[in-house]
Amino acid sequence: MSLKVFGHRNPDTDAIGAAIAYSYLLNQTGVDAEAVALGEPNEETQYALNHFGLQAPRVVKTLANETSEVALVDHNEKAQTISDIDELTVKYVVDHHRIANFQTSEPLYYRAEPLGCTSTILYKLYKEAAITIPKDIAGIMLSAIISDTLLFKSPTCTAEDIEIGDQLAEIAEVSLNEYGLALLKAGTNLASKSAEELIDLDAKTFELGKYKVRVAQVNTVDIPEVKARKDEFIKAINASGFDLFLLMITDILNSNTELLVVGEPIEPVEKAFHKKVVDQFIDLPTVVSRKKQIVPQLTDAF
Amino acid sequence: MSLKVFGHRNPDTDAIGAAIAYSYLLNQTGVDAEAVALGEPNEETQYALNHFGLQAPRVVKTLANETSEVALVDHNEKAQTISDIDELTVKYVVDHHRIANFQTSEPLYYRAEPLGCTSTILYKLYKEAAITIPKDIAGIMLSAIISDTLLFKSPTCTAEDIEIGDQLAEIAEVSLNEYGLALLKAGTNLASKSAEELIDLDAKTFELGKYKVRVAQVNTVDIPEVKARKDEFIKAINASGFDLFLLMITDILNSNTELLVVGEPIEPVEKAFHKKVVDQFIDLPTVVSRKKQIVPQLTDAF
Repeated sequence: MSLKVFGHRNPDTDAIGAAIAYSYLLNQTGVDAEAVALGEPNEETQYALNHFGLQAPRVVKTLANETSEVALVDHNEKAQTISDIDELTVKYVVDHHRIANFQTSEPLYYRAEPLGCTSTILYKLYKEAAITIPKDIAGIMLSAIISDTLLFKSPTCTAEDIEIGDQLAEIAEVSLNEYGLALLKAGTNLASKSAEELIDLDAKTFELGKYKVRVAQVNTVDIPEVKARKDEFIKAINASGFDLFLLMITDILNSNTELLVVGEPIEPVEKAFHKKVVDQFIDLPTVVSRKKQIVPQLTDAF
Repeated sequence: MSLKVFGHRNPDTDAIGAAIAYSYLLNQTGVDAEAVALGEPNEETQYALNHFGLQAPRVVKTLANETSEVALVDHNEKAQTISDIDELTVKYVVDHHRIANFQTSEPLYYRAEPLGCTSTILYKLYKEAAITIPKDIAGIMLSAIISDTLLFKSPTCTAEDIEIGDQLAEIAEVSLNEYGLALLKAGTNLASKSAEELIDLDAKTFELGKYKVRVAQVNTVDIPEVKARKDEFIKAINASGFDLFLLMITDILNSNTELLVVGEPIEPVEKAFHKKVVDQFIDLPTVVSRKKQIVPQLTDAF
């Protein structure tokens, strides 16, 4: 009955990569651990897994039927974790997000740092434990850092992310910029996806006051092409059942976001960004980070 | 406007010692930090401070009037922290307790490990940052480990606590056993204190279901002497205004506890320990740890 390690729902490259990297580290330090995932890898993550010859972790919907102890990576909030978390004991958390709606009845190992990526923290844990990082694991960790920091351009990116990204690129034997751009572009193939798929690709739920608020993000190199599908998005969002739904349409080359706002209440959203919603959009120049540029502002406004 | 570092209300030796040790470490790594405390040191802590020539941290009731950023040591729960925590930003937490009723709006540094003492974790942080521990700081960190683990006899004590305790004793230049027994005995001088003082000496509040539950602990070398003051305790507890009050009377030499149970509901308490309350007491052989042998059992029962 090994301990299961997993990232958040709607996994991105860090959620999948950190589960792979942390389960490997735990195994090396004598803890029997298996990486699993709360969903299939997206196209960006699949590109990274293929590039480094790694298998996608097994997808699970519940875990109490097969284990009692888990490790959370890249998340902690209840709305973002496995559905039967209350029946499981969280023994380890490695994360780089705020802490909220998280509770244990016993002491645990919890390691959070305000860095750009969980995999940057994991690199430090490998060093502290003096465990060598294999090439394929270094590759998926690097991919996670590129993904979370948009190739070091997000305001969440720190000097440590850049320095450790460089180290990992060396171990993984890739050219950081060339591989990084190819990885990010692999995630912007939006035309082939339905609106339902796009609003769920990288989406997180937050409980703000009495409201269930969903904040989703799609990365693109062509904002107008994505905005043209506004009516499709609104229809899909209305069917999704949240009080308020914010869809970040982010230009990863120019680092801007157009925020599609659907649902109620609108007033705290306008207060959060000091701008009026026009035609259901708020234009947010220089915004690319949900964690740093959207969620704290919303939390304060609610 | 330096960052303020403090332990829990009703500070024990770890709460005071970890604030002193962590603020020193932060200062050494370039963060302007000051140790403060949410109460005066108890007799045990004062003994340790005197022994190593340290000043007690300044006592504060609120902090938003003088700073905006804080570090919590040896606690995280809202009921155990400063009253105006909602107006402050928690930037760092170093702790060895469960996580509950704790929430931030932004990412932070959070380091918890399931070890016997916060100061054991701090020792590791000093090593990771390659900062030398001065003799007086080593002394107060060692005192915290002795206090929290009852000189390595508590079930919360781990191999790391013992190993690091040995290292710190060397730096602090004390004989571990001799100093340790003297320190613990300094905290058992109960006869001179009123019942009101004793039930508040080392007490923590927990929100369990809809109840406010207070769990206090007094250490002694003579349980019958303390039990003889039962009526005094009940009177003081009834005036304290909690739904349920549990007073652990712990024999630190023989590692037993008599639990005085006052208030409602009684049923989950009996369920938690699989024993009936007799004459308002539950006899708990081998129990010495609130964190490991009382709180998780209560949390599950509620």
